[in-house]
Amino acid sequence: MLFHVKMTVNIPLDIDPAKIELIKAEEKALAQRLQHEGKWRHLWRIAGQYANYSLFDVDSTQELHDILMQLPLFPYMDIEVEALCRHASSIHADDR
Amino acid sequence: MLFHVKMTVNIPLDIDPAKIELIKAEEKALAQRLQHEGKWRHLWRIAGQYANYSLFDVDSTQELHDILMQLPLFPYMDIEVEALCRHASSIHADDR
Amino acid sequence: MLFHVKMTVNIPLDIDPAKIELIKAEEKALAQRLQHEGKWRHLWRIAGQYANYSLFDVDSTQELHDILMQLPLFPYMDIEVEALCRHASSIHADDR
Amino acid sequence: MLFHVKMTVNIPLDIDPAKIELIKAEEKALAQRLQHEGKWRHLWRIAGQYANYSLFDVDSTQELHDILMQLPLFPYMDIEVEALCRHASSIHADDR
Amino acid sequence: MLFHVKMTVNIPLDIDPAKIELIKAEEKALAQRLQHEGKWRHLWRIAGQYANYSLFDVDSTQELHDILMQLPLFPYMDIEVEALCRHASSIHADDR
Amino acid sequence: MLFHVKMTVNIPLDIDPAKIELIKAEEKALAQRLQHEGKWRHLWRIAGQYANYSLFDVDSTQELHDILMQLPLFPYMDIEVEALCRHASSIHADDR
Amino acid sequence: MLFHVKMTVNIPLDIDPAKIELIKAEEKALAQRLQHEGKWRHLWRIAGQYANYSLFDVDSTQELHDILMQLPLFPYMDIEVEALCRHASSIHADDR
Amino acid sequence: MLFHVKMTVNIPLDIDPAKIELIKAEEKALAQRLQHEGKWRHLWRIAGQYANYSLFDVDSTQELHDILMQLPLFPYMDIEVEALCRHASSIHADDR
Amino acid sequence: MLFHVKMTVNIPLDIDPAKIELIKAEEKALAQRLQHEGKWRHLWRIAGQYANYSLFDVDSTQELHDILMQLPLFPYMDIEVEALCRHASSIHADDR
Amino acid sequence: MLFHVKMTVNIPLDIDPAKIELIKAEEKALAQRLQHEGKWRHLWRIAGQYANYSLFDVDSTQELHDILMQLPLFPYMDIEVEALCRHASSIHADDR
Repeated sequence: MLFHVKMTVNIPLDIDPAKIELIKAEEKALAQRLQHEGKWRHLWRIAGQYANYSLFDVDSTQELHDILMQLPLFPYMDIEVEALCRHASSIHADDR
Repeated sequence: MLFHVKMTVNIPLDIDPAKIELIKAEEKALAQRLQHEGKWRHLWRIAGQYANYSLFDVDSTQELHDILMQLPLFPYMDIEVEALCRHASSIHADDR
Repeated sequence: MLFHVKMTVNIPLDIDPAKIELIKAEEKALAQRLQHEGKWRHLWRIAGQYANYSLFDVDSTQELHDILMQLPLFPYMDIEVEALCRHASSIHADDR
Repeated sequence: MLFHVKMTVNIPLDIDPAKIELIKAEEKALAQRLQHEGKWRHLWRIAGQYANYSLFDVDSTQELHDILMQLPLFPYMDIEVEALCRHASSIHADDR
Repeated sequence: MLFHVKMTVNIPLDIDPAKIELIKAEEKALAQRLQHEGKWRHLWRIAGQYANYSLFDVDSTQELHDILMQLPLFPYMDIEVEALCRHASSIHADDR
Repeated sequence: MLFHVKMTVNIPLDIDPAKIELIKAEEKALAQRLQHEGKWRHLWRIAGQYANYSLFDVDSTQELHDILMQLPLFPYMDIEVEALCRHASSIHADDR
Repeated sequence: MLFHVKMTVNIPLDIDPAKIELIKAEEKALAQRLQHEGKWRHLWRIAGQYANYSLFDVDSTQELHDILMQLPLFPYMDIEVEALCRHASSIHADDR
Repeated sequence: MLFHVKMTVNIPLDIDPAKIELIKAEEKALAQRLQHEGKWRHLWRIAGQYANYSLFDVDSTQELHDILMQLPLFPYMDIEVEALCRHASSIHADDR
Repeated sequence: MLFHVKMTVNIPLDIDPAKIELIKAEEKALAQRLQHEGKWRHLWRIAGQYANYSLFDVDSTQELHDILMQLPLFPYMDIEVEALCRHASSIHADDR
Repeated sequence: MLFHVKMTVNIPLDIDPAKIELIKAEEKALAQRLQHEGKWRHLWRIAGQYANYSLFDVDSTQELHDILMQLPLFPYMDIEVEALCRHASSIHADDR
């Protein structure tokens, strides 16, 4: 089941650089694990923004929520979630 | 080069049903051709909305514009375009 | 799996009264069938508005989409969909 | 009498962790007491957000206000209140 | 129990003048009856707007909804409802 | 002459509690004096919000401005002012 | 007493040209009479818009409302009203 | 050439009172000089707001920008600029 | 003097095709004349939109307004105007 | 390929003046280098705002993103990106 998620990151200007670098590294590691697991299906950077569009492929809304909540950058993010489903004009049986 | 496009369709309630069915059929045919050509990379329905999120893989902004303008449903759509690029945390060299 | 849906109805003022009464009757019949089936879990009227808040209990985003799309009043509605999940402070194992 | 309430929580990033954990614990305890009393009828987490949708079943607007104002997390929340009433298509005499 | 209601009236330009004059007359008659009954507590015109702020004094959200829905101008109005309660600094035991 | 005023209070979380309690006390005292003088005609709490709707009965926009500016909580408030006048359907010669 | 008013005019595209020309002529005549009377203190065109900023110098909110309501273009206008008063840094005792 | 400017002032609550009083004094002195020079044509306080509407009479957009940028309160202000021109219904050849 | 203008075109769906084609042709002819005269400095299409960003180089706000008002497509356009001036970091003495 | 970019700069009031002056100097140097390279095609100041409109001439969305991300003022900016393409009415084969 697919969910379209927009994440906009707002890092406070006065944050400890070392702390945020650590958080970013953890974020990247987790994001890459989830991509390898097929949960985080797509991850694109929005040009000119510290933001991304992502596609999550999960079994439930609970799973989606748990994934997003455990992201190290979660406290610094505005997140918008929209449920997707197959488009009648898609040539793919299941456009992942 | 990837562009993220949101299309929201607003069909006037008093439109001639036959006319719009024809337009929808043409739209589907063109959308599927563009998907086969690899231009229209992804096409998802937003649950509960007469709207979709699409990914276009084009060589220029001009090509993107020409594709969108020739969509039969174009006159009935609100379109939002955002330029994407590779995310540093993506495990894909080129997440298509 | 729960989805929170807001439906705001905008009936054109110049619509044929008989036509819309028929549509409303079909809407009510379908809504009540879906409630009996447990799909349409809650349906509340927003005081002072021709709008409602509803809770849908479905197995997938596709099922949610199909339900909403077949509502006779769909063409006259603005629909907002948000995915819900269990709240850690809920006393219910599964607050339906 | 039902009220639909959306609570969005914004915890300052630089808050004392111990302090906010205490507040969260008090919030949970109060929320669960009010649920047991039937005042806080439903409590759902909005997937991907530090926010919830709640249904309150109260005897007056004053009671609703007093409940919300005493929530330990109140100072950290944006709250939206909407009055609900029975929907003519509800199969429940009183959809609680 | 008090509710603060903003009503903004949008009369279609091409409506039959006789029809709308009749509706306005019915609206005025009903509004004045409800004021005499003490339900419609206050009714003020917003300067420069075809809109008003009103205070309703009702026993339930259902009663408020029924009142608003039966207003002849309802189909032509955008309505915003907010629940009020006593302010701790009010010198009135019950500011009506 | 009546003015409809919405005041939304945003107290910084890190403010000195003693300071703000003093300010609130001064605010309450001034609000009650102005109510006794008939300037501050109505004061209602918006349920669930640290905000109020007020009606001011003043002789000029300057008087309104001076009153609002001297409120101790002014620096912490978002204020919206709208001019009111008598509604043609009001049963009151001068709905105060 | 000064009020700042923004008027944005939206003439339906399918209106009878003769009718609207007549209305515009009446609007201009009334606007000029009110300017001569000193009620309509300033009238500026917003460059690139079918809209204006105006300053009205009236004795009450009722007078302002009556003036605006009788404008022939009123049914075609979005109107925003804001109350003004003397600025402490103005070099004019009464900046009209 | 006239420009309509809205200035909304947001002074941080924790600013050094002496510093901001000095800035306000400098702002007032400059504002009054510019008014005497005829550049700052009108300056009105928006009732209930720490904001003003101003009319600037300048020879170019560059001059307008330079004036606004040198205002001591500039760093604390949200500024909206709109270009004005003569309204066809104005009785003034050049409504200053 | 430069003005940044966004024009969004909304052609009614039920307009006479011949009529609008004529209007579009006139618009193109006028736009090209103004470009040749150096008044309409830049004209770019916003990809995916029936909208453009334009730069106008004019001697006054009145001239800008007159140009925009005489555009055949003016009645079908939402127009946003912003005054520009030279940026301190521009390498051009006068970036046209 | 052209991209239209709006940059709005929000410098925290409590920032170290020396630090931000250094950043601004670096920003100006980089902006001027990119202009000399033809990448940053146009740079205009929005009158009255600490904001600019810019045109970037790049070979890909990735290049645009990399340029914007390396701007020293990036952390202090809200950035809006829109893809442009040639307008059918432009007299320029390639309006740069």
